Amino acid sequence: MTTQVVKKHMVVAQNASGRNMNVPIYRMKGARPGPTVYIQSSIHGAEVQGNVVIYHLIQRLKDMDICGEIILVPNCNPIGTNIKAGEYTLGRFDPVNGTNWNRGYFFDKEAVKHFAKTVTREESIEGIKQRFRAHLSNAIDNKLAEPWGLGLAQQLNLKLQQMAVNADFVLDLHNGPVSTRHVYIPEYAKDSAKLFNIPHCIFIPNVFAGALDEATFCPWWTLQESIKTNLEREISFNVEAFTLEMGSQEVIDFNEGNIDATSILSYLNAKGVLHECDIKPKEMQRLGVYLKDYKTLFTNWGGMVEYMAKPGQTVKKGEPLAQILNIDDLDTDNGSRTLEAPCDLIPILHFPSASVLSGTQLYKVFTNYKEL
Amino acid sequence: MTTQVVKKHMVVAQNASGRNMNVPIYRMKGARPGPTVYIQSSIHGAEVQGNVVIYHLIQRLKDMDICGEIILVPNCNPIGTNIKAGEYTLGRFDPVNGTNWNRGYFFDKEAVKHFAKTVTREESIEGIKQRFRAHLSNAIDNKLAEPWGLGLAQQLNLKLQQMAVNADFVLDLHNGPVSTRHVYIPEYAKDSAKLFNIPHCIFIPNVFAGALDEATFCPWWTLQESIKTNLEREISFNVEAFTLEMGSQEVIDFNEGNIDATSILSYLNAKGVLHECDIKPKEMQRLGVYLKDYKTLFTNWGGMVEYMAKPGQTVKKGEPLAQILNIDDLDTDNGSRTLEAPCDLIPILHFPSASVLSGTQLYKVFTNYKEL
Amino acid sequence: MTTQVVKKHMVVAQNASGRNMNVPIYRMKGARPGPTVYIQSSIHGAEVQGNVVIYHLIQRLKDMDICGEIILVPNCNPIGTNIKAGEYTLGRFDPVNGTNWNRGYFFDKEAVKHFAKTVTREESIEGIKQRFRAHLSNAIDNKLAEPWGLGLAQQLNLKLQQMAVNADFVLDLHNGPVSTRHVYIPEYAKDSAKLFNIPHCIFIPNVFAGALDEATFCPWWTLQESIKTNLEREISFNVEAFTLEMGSQEVIDFNEGNIDATSILSYLNAKGVLHECDIKPKEMQRLGVYLKDYKTLFTNWGGMVEYMAKPGQTVKKGEPLAQILNIDDLDTDNGSRTLEAPCDLIPILHFPSASVLSGTQLYKVFTNYKEL
Amino acid sequence: MTTQVVKKHMVVAQNASGRNMNVPIYRMKGARPGPTVYIQSSIHGAEVQGNVVIYHLIQRLKDMDICGEIILVPNCNPIGTNIKAGEYTLGRFDPVNGTNWNRGYFFDKEAVKHFAKTVTREESIEGIKQRFRAHLSNAIDNKLAEPWGLGLAQQLNLKLQQMAVNADFVLDLHNGPVSTRHVYIPEYAKDSAKLFNIPHCIFIPNVFAGALDEATFCPWWTLQESIKTNLEREISFNVEAFTLEMGSQEVIDFNEGNIDATSILSYLNAKGVLHECDIKPKEMQRLGVYLKDYKTLFTNWGGMVEYMAKPGQTVKKGEPLAQILNIDDLDTDNGSRTLEAPCDLIPILHFPSASVLSGTQLYKVFTNYKEL
Repeated sequence: MTTQVVKKHMVVAQNASGRNMNVPIYRMKGARPGPTVYIQSSIHGAEVQGNVVIYHLIQRLKDMDICGEIILVPNCNPIGTNIKAGEYTLGRFDPVNGTNWNRGYFFDKEAVKHFAKTVTREESIEGIKQRFRAHLSNAIDNKLAEPWGLGLAQQLNLKLQQMAVNADFVLDLHNGPVSTRHVYIPEYAKDSAKLFNIPHCIFIPNVFAGALDEATFCPWWTLQESIKTNLEREISFNVEAFTLEMGSQEVIDFNEGNIDATSILSYLNAKGVLHECDIKPKEMQRLGVYLKDYKTLFTNWGGMVEYMAKPGQTVKKGEPLAQILNIDDLDTDNGSRTLEAPCDLIPILHFPSASVLSGTQLYKVFTNYKEL
Repeated sequence: MTTQVVKKHMVVAQNASGRNMNVPIYRMKGARPGPTVYIQSSIHGAEVQGNVVIYHLIQRLKDMDICGEIILVPNCNPIGTNIKAGEYTLGRFDPVNGTNWNRGYFFDKEAVKHFAKTVTREESIEGIKQRFRAHLSNAIDNKLAEPWGLGLAQQLNLKLQQMAVNADFVLDLHNGPVSTRHVYIPEYAKDSAKLFNIPHCIFIPNVFAGALDEATFCPWWTLQESIKTNLEREISFNVEAFTLEMGSQEVIDFNEGNIDATSILSYLNAKGVLHECDIKPKEMQRLGVYLKDYKTLFTNWGGMVEYMAKPGQTVKKGEPLAQILNIDDLDTDNGSRTLEAPCDLIPILHFPSASVLSGTQLYKVFTNYKEL
Repeated sequence: MTTQVVKKHMVVAQNASGRNMNVPIYRMKGARPGPTVYIQSSIHGAEVQGNVVIYHLIQRLKDMDICGEIILVPNCNPIGTNIKAGEYTLGRFDPVNGTNWNRGYFFDKEAVKHFAKTVTREESIEGIKQRFRAHLSNAIDNKLAEPWGLGLAQQLNLKLQQMAVNADFVLDLHNGPVSTRHVYIPEYAKDSAKLFNIPHCIFIPNVFAGALDEATFCPWWTLQESIKTNLEREISFNVEAFTLEMGSQEVIDFNEGNIDATSILSYLNAKGVLHECDIKPKEMQRLGVYLKDYKTLFTNWGGMVEYMAKPGQTVKKGEPLAQILNIDDLDTDNGSRTLEAPCDLIPILHFPSASVLSGTQLYKVFTNYKEL
Repeated sequence: MTTQVVKKHMVVAQNASGRNMNVPIYRMKGARPGPTVYIQSSIHGAEVQGNVVIYHLIQRLKDMDICGEIILVPNCNPIGTNIKAGEYTLGRFDPVNGTNWNRGYFFDKEAVKHFAKTVTREESIEGIKQRFRAHLSNAIDNKLAEPWGLGLAQQLNLKLQQMAVNADFVLDLHNGPVSTRHVYIPEYAKDSAKLFNIPHCIFIPNVFAGALDEATFCPWWTLQESIKTNLEREISFNVEAFTLEMGSQEVIDFNEGNIDATSILSYLNAKGVLHECDIKPKEMQRLGVYLKDYKTLFTNWGGMVEYMAKPGQTVKKGEPLAQILNIDDLDTDNGSRTLEAPCDLIPILHFPSASVLSGTQLYKVFTNYKEL
């Protein structure tokens, strides 16, 4: 059983030399019917591990029996990947204007509520889905055709989103700065947390801030809620979208990437994408928090920092998080000082440089977490 | 008549060496009672002309008779001013995370509506103002005391906003990229457009996007509207806030700065801040648009551009805006092409570099403008 | 009479997505024999006016009768052109390591002296030229084949230099920051200063610092000198190379570009490249200095600067060059101060931003200049 | 026995706000006579571990009995430390012009040779040293007083060098990108390699490229050689200077820093700086190469890289160094490929980002290394 890979390239931007910049699109269509899956990586240019994960996915899916279709778009931001500033990649925002590359996707809540009113008690779920997808796709086209034009990040985002609009399952592969693996999960799809082999899960509400996962699940969630309100009809469209954080930015690791691929395959298998596949989620500890309990610890001082608490490690209130050097007091007792955990927590990621100004996101941490 | 200047410095951040970074604060208190004025410049680090304007204001106000108090804070963003990337100043956003330095001010609409409910039909305007200022100041303090901390831009913004909270008139001095002089004016204070000598006026609604002018007028406007709704009592608090765009970034010009200072003094005089001062607004053409008619023209191509239409110039539909070079077709008729104005317009500013990627803000323009 | 343009692209680098980055190469071969000319532009990515000059050159040369061959390479640095940091182009150096894009060309003085020993009193000039070109080309190939590899700037430089190695006349089109037009001329080709319509000329010695003009003329000059020493034979190879500074960076201007093209055509015509062409150098004032008299004025203070003296303007000792704002003393007489010219001079260029740290190249100026 | 620490600050630059930027200087003068030691860290702003090493040195030296004087300057480049571009520190070069912060120190070979002629056969070594130091200090002063000024990096370098000019032992603490500990040692001081606990040693010739270690040892080495040539008098001035690479940039580690401090104390003890101190160099394997055998492996391709060979690890010819991902061929056998070691080698450092353009310094490696 071999699944063919159809590869094309899509132009998403032009550089200052007027040259097209494109993204590779790999499509794997199974012989059997089934859901559509959309997976992209590296919308933030420095977050490259997802590209390796997609490599392993393609290589392994070639020998699998796919139900439906899987669309894979690695390195989906050719601008962000290629802006160096020093040895590192300035990949999280547009270097021209500071726009985060993951904040320009489309969602119009009012339009969804309006659409919901056209749904009747009798319309089939498949019928609604089909009509709604056409509606969404059309809305993205309209947005892209804006007569005065759109910013670069938004143009890129919408062109990618257009490919994801027919998908049932959307996975956006990211990395943290220095980070343990974690995943963002819409609260209504909470059960899917156990289908990945990812130890840290963040449950997020139906709130749109511009990211691809939100742009995918907010419309369906809103539609579902609106139909419930309007018709007292309970529908589950079973469209899910996740942001998977595959470790630390600026590094790739082929072995880890294969393990990550297994994690994704176990999710896809559970969702009926793979025929006669025996990949199952691992038995493992999974910890979850609600978004409000996923805290960012900012500094109100500047200085040089040793990150003592490592991502994924359990830290008790009062235990040391970081050691700070004060270069103007190296001869006194103030030469170094310890920053302590303000409560029980698990660091998920920390800032990737020892040198921090005041107002730096030092750590993002789980508080009030629960085992799933 | 000489007005004393009291100067101090306020720490707003620490750098990675752990050194304090501060802003200079000049206070000029008149012998007579009167309103409070707050003027700052250079929150965007590359927008430096406002510093020269403040220099001229201080020098000239020293010999004037002030009613009330004027607080002037030049170079209010010591981090943004000092981030170079190449010869230019990367001053519009935090180089660490892309956060616009002018988007972290505070406004809580619900809290204002809540406050409005405490206002009675009998409470004096002065009484309301005093209570409301205490409320706002307190809210900013609470925000700054956030136990998990705040980002650098927000810390900076809130510390500055705390100084502006008692002001009746707030002026935030900016520059455009390559730009003619223009000013943002809240719709409810539209009449003040004629008090400055600024030819291009943009009227903005009661919508908060994080900037200082909005953070200043949104609360008072919202309060006014809420009281009207709650009590059918019409109050004008006469608190005004403006973003003044003093020409192009990356340049200073002392002569122009003195002219700008006169423009501001004519506003202050009209508002009763100056005693026996004869500076009056100039007789001149002033053009105004609503924000929705202030259009941004994005490119959907990349290349090299000559900006043919100059800021401030009247352009008819179909007239050339820009000439674009195509470096891969220099031998054909496609070597260069003209971009035409999609409608009658006045360019207010354009991108400061000939080299543009797709999705670049090429021009911002007035359409459907009217003489005031 | 129409000259055909043959266009191809050459790969000069790969980006982090593994994509080829190429430069366009336009070749125009005349029907008649004659010299070879190599013209490139934008090795510094922000210096884009030369691309417009090449556009006009190609369009006009199409209708001319060329003797020999002209090779034109616009936008010769596709990496430098496309590194944005803020709205500007970070194009003067490799953003990874700071390497100036115009310092990696090849010249091996000892190898030239060694080659000179193989020249006999009888060998024809054409024979020597042919052998020496083969030698140079071979040396560049060897350098490019370095088993441990080469840095990006050097790889790019050598690939471009290989195209210039057979040229008799090499023109490298640059821009200054904010700049008047000027040209660097090897001292031994001083007479050519009058063949361009460029008002400011800098005569440079036989010293190699890595730039293309030096990498072109140093070998021939050294060869000429060595043969003179070895054999007392005076040869003029008539190989010339110039760096032309076509005004300010970050802007293009089509009208100015056409004037620049005329200036270059007048040089080419004088050198026998154009048949029956009547373009002649303009009667105009041309001022020249030796490199040692082309001074850079650095600051030993930081602050904000108005550049009062404009590029090209005659300034007497003691006249104001710049006005400096001191943001911590806006209330005193130290709020601003004037920087005076330390001697009679002509500013050729100044720093493009008002905001300067200490140690900034404020102005580059002609001193002890003479009319040619 | 407690040694006092005298702390002051020296202004080395001014920022664009006109504010002074200074470096902390810690001086520890022993009760007994002895040599002078100068230690600085972080001339490259992202290389911060040396600051922690200096912290431990100061804390430990306070309880030691020093012969002579030790001057310690942590964080010696306040500009470089504070230029962020994204989350990382753009600290290796001036962000304005690309100048490496470690290439502007002073050495004038001809002046040293000239000085050497003033030395007689009878002059005492101490006498020569004293006169030569005065000569060097004077030369640096003259350079700093250059009437047209100097660039920022050079101003900074010279102000630091002036403090080091009287030192017998100069240690410049750096870091590599991702790096094992290594040290640069002038060939004439080769024996000192065994006095540090650093496993990898690079022996460098008497060639000046602008760095502090070279600027320190080149004059003394040249003087020594010239006197030998002139007078056939063999003198060893015993002035030594080293660049110590303390692991990887962008991280600090207090425990490792203490170990590094021990390594430096063992050198200082061996050189007579510490009285009755029992810290001795460790018994350990030390490997050395000549500079010509310290190879940089550049890529001639761009792509994403897993650095398989770790710094410090022995790699045989043909063993894998790196695994490269090709995002446009994830479906084929070319999706990834292995880069093999071209000869037996030890990687000392590698590039810190997975994303590389062509021409990237992938690895720096020891070849033909020998055990010391």
